Amino acid sequence: MIVLSLNRKSKTSLSRQVFTEISEMIENNTLPPGTKLPSSRILAEKHGVSRNVVYNAYEELWGQGYVDSRPGSYTVVRKKTPGIQMTQREEKGLIDWNNAVSLKSKEVYDIISKYPRSGYPMKSSDIIDMSTLDLDHRVLPYDDFRKCINTVIVKQPYIFNYGEPEGYFPLRSFISSRLQTHGIHVSPEEILITNGTQHSLDLTLRLLGKPGSVIVTENPTYFLAFPLFQFYQTEIISVSMSEEGINLRELEKTMRSGNVSFVYTTPNFHNPTGITMSPEVRENLVRICEKYHVPIVEDAFEEEMKYFGRVPLSIKSMDKNQIVIYMSSFSKVLFPGVRIGWIAADKDFIKIASAVKKTSDLATNSIIQSALFEFCRQGYYEIHIKRMNRIYKKRMQTALNVLKNELSSDHISWSEPLGGYLIWLKLSRLNISEEELHGIFKNFKINVAPGSLYFNNQPADYFIRISISQLNEDEIIEGLKRLKNALAEIYQKWSAG
Amino acid sequence: MIVLSLNRKSKTSLSRQVFTEISEMIENNTLPPGTKLPSSRILAEKHGVSRNVVYNAYEELWGQGYVDSRPGSYTVVRKKTPGIQMTQREEKGLIDWNNAVSLKSKEVYDIISKYPRSGYPMKSSDIIDMSTLDLDHRVLPYDDFRKCINTVIVKQPYIFNYGEPEGYFPLRSFISSRLQTHGIHVSPEEILITNGTQHSLDLTLRLLGKPGSVIVTENPTYFLAFPLFQFYQTEIISVSMSEEGINLRELEKTMRSGNVSFVYTTPNFHNPTGITMSPEVRENLVRICEKYHVPIVEDAFEEEMKYFGRVPLSIKSMDKNQIVIYMSSFSKVLFPGVRIGWIAADKDFIKIASAVKKTSDLATNSIIQSALFEFCRQGYYEIHIKRMNRIYKKRMQTALNVLKNELSSDHISWSEPLGGYLIWLKLSRLNISEEELHGIFKNFKINVAPGSLYFNNQPADYFIRISISQLNEDEIIEGLKRLKNALAEIYQKWSAG
Repeated sequence: MIVLSLNRKSKTSLSRQVFTEISEMIENNTLPPGTKLPSSRILAEKHGVSRNVVYNAYEELWGQGYVDSRPGSYTVVRKKTPGIQMTQREEKGLIDWNNAVSLKSKEVYDIISKYPRSGYPMKSSDIIDMSTLDLDHRVLPYDDFRKCINTVIVKQPYIFNYGEPEGYFPLRSFISSRLQTHGIHVSPEEILITNGTQHSLDLTLRLLGKPGSVIVTENPTYFLAFPLFQFYQTEIISVSMSEEGINLRELEKTMRSGNVSFVYTTPNFHNPTGITMSPEVRENLVRICEKYHVPIVEDAFEEEMKYFGRVPLSIKSMDKNQIVIYMSSFSKVLFPGVRIGWIAADKDFIKIASAVKKTSDLATNSIIQSALFEFCRQGYYEIHIKRMNRIYKKRMQTALNVLKNELSSDHISWSEPLGGYLIWLKLSRLNISEEELHGIFKNFKINVAPGSLYFNNQPADYFIRISISQLNEDEIIEGLKRLKNALAEIYQKWSAG
Repeated sequence: MIVLSLNRKSKTSLSRQVFTEISEMIENNTLPPGTKLPSSRILAEKHGVSRNVVYNAYEELWGQGYVDSRPGSYTVVRKKTPGIQMTQREEKGLIDWNNAVSLKSKEVYDIISKYPRSGYPMKSSDIIDMSTLDLDHRVLPYDDFRKCINTVIVKQPYIFNYGEPEGYFPLRSFISSRLQTHGIHVSPEEILITNGTQHSLDLTLRLLGKPGSVIVTENPTYFLAFPLFQFYQTEIISVSMSEEGINLRELEKTMRSGNVSFVYTTPNFHNPTGITMSPEVRENLVRICEKYHVPIVEDAFEEEMKYFGRVPLSIKSMDKNQIVIYMSSFSKVLFPGVRIGWIAADKDFIKIASAVKKTSDLATNSIIQSALFEFCRQGYYEIHIKRMNRIYKKRMQTALNVLKNELSSDHISWSEPLGGYLIWLKLSRLNISEEELHGIFKNFKINVAPGSLYFNNQPADYFIRISISQLNEDEIIEGLKRLKNALAEIYQKWSAG
């Protein structure tokens, strides 16, 4: 017999009270499994509540697995607890996920777990971080962007629904007209919006990265391309670089071997070396790839940061035969966290990539796309790019001056980038492990990116990548002063020549 | 000899004027390829401008590919036009992309191109759209969300930088505590933020979808799972459903054959059938999968829409042995366009999936994640869910009433869903092509989703999926009235019984 003590003055509904009391009786075995509960009519009459109160409580008991109930039959207590608590779990799960997952995903994990962690910069830290391409949030136009988000939310609430897999058409139109600045003439239909350049690269690999096929890259290259190429089980062939860009002779030799999926190149302010490919090399690269019918993937992640002027037009601008897949993004000039990039390529490529993209994430965030378009439409983008160019030109000049005046030495060398955020330092004649090297940088309260990350074929010398993207001039000066002191100590102790 | 006509009163800078005039001379062959340009010093002196003016113009000429220039040497006109115009392209590109891409991506394209297009609903249309799971934007809390975006942009500008691949930690914490409502007890470390459930499914396939392995699904099932399973070259085995959920006898038979990657199931308000799996079937499903060490992928895309009460706890809530990979999203209760979902699963699985996610898109939009967390933290989420439940409970009741009162017939049947947005109608004894069928619906100015989309093994009967997610009560009544009239015409002309 069930006797309930219901409190009619309680804020808790009567149904909830009935549910709680009966579930507790089941939990503490006052009502063991198999017990038939009284019909809702009888229990309701007994306690002077409406039948609906009991009915709702029984439904809840059923929903949470306390009772079995079938139409026209008794409600019976089941053997069941409501939700396995963390302490009730088996200590070891049944599946060994490290072995259950595909080998290629495990390999990706093994590579990624060795990389430095990314994420929000530590604000309170007294370390000067020259290791990442995060941007200096003090110069970002977040208030203008905020206004634009407000505008679109108020004026276009329907943007909160799904967007098209190809991306928001007005934004694609803006990009197609903006690209003319870089000599690229494409229609909006030749543009696919993605969640940033990494996503563009992933989609391209879904289309072109056949297992066993070859991807030709510069050596060194963008380090997060490696695990992705690995995931698609492609073979990476790395071609050396000169100050003019990729080594064409080596490239052509690789091409002759056949089976090349595409050539992946970063012609401007190359990551990590900062090298800008010369117009001649660009033209010849196109010529060679045309000859072998091999697509070029042009990673133009810093296309807008040509603040020193002397930068050739993009490779895509020379693409008479539609072999170039051009990738760029708002991440490296506006907000990294905005996660909006794009691919500009042949219509057929875009068409297939859009379908594949749809299966991978349906569509890119439509709120952010609309806000971004509003930001561009109102002219904030142009103003911001000009401002970024002005600011980082000064910052880069400062960095290069400090390097020239303070760090010149026989064993430390670099070349001057034509734009962007990166300086690539070569440290010759050292006999030290890379771990020790970066341990000392940490002692001097600086972070720089270790060169080995970027190489497929490791070189004999040490390299470090310096990024000024997060730093103002004072911080650059202070950071490079610390680097100088760190290197002084390092060369004193571990000089190899 | 170059003679320039410079206008010192023009708004255009002198450098730009020098650039424009010389580039025009090159374009119209006044300066043919091979011509040596005068040194910047000489040209500057001749026109009474500073040497810097000419120097900058020469740099721009070089950058745009008009001239060659090497340190200590003459500047020479090159054979080059600045950017291939669309009209200058070869009519047929060099690469036949339809054949150059991987077969699996082409297959995805072929499947997707046959599906109905998604995208922003047409506002001006007089068609009542019951075909998609877009939400009724008139009930979405966009103004509350707008306030939250404003708050985070003003207070946390650093969120504009890259986030962590696993997602914004406070949001992961909120989700872990919210999941307790559904009987799920997991730590924030067991949660990975994704770009929606489609993305969660894609990531899971990267880990578990080995080529040739079997994925067991319900028949019918979510149609955008098919091209994704196809892309990963997995085999789909579809198991029939009853009103209790997946057919366990068939399931176990499939299991015995081995090689099953995972079972994909949607236990609540199943898409498209609206069926809710009974507690007994849930428990037995877990038992069977535990026996065979096969993971369960639980698609809980409408977990929060349990407005009729009588819904069992999630499968994940019974997961003592960590075999359930649980997926849900903010898309189906808050904003589809927000593109934020999550996976709750074993720590090791999350760890590997995070690494793989990082290579696929670095990180999910950090601005939206922070705004969403703020939205939840301020209690807007709870309020909104309650409101959605109240609104859609009424709407669904309205729809079911209209169906019962107006569409009851021997050859039209459906079962009443326990929540969500979907009603699945079976149309028996018809002799008509599906295309004709939907052509008539269009004539009556309604859109419903064709049942065949959702089947791997096509059934003998016709099915249509009705979604009330975009419609208010008046629209539901009008839409179903039109459906009634359409079906009357259809059964008059194409009845097969």
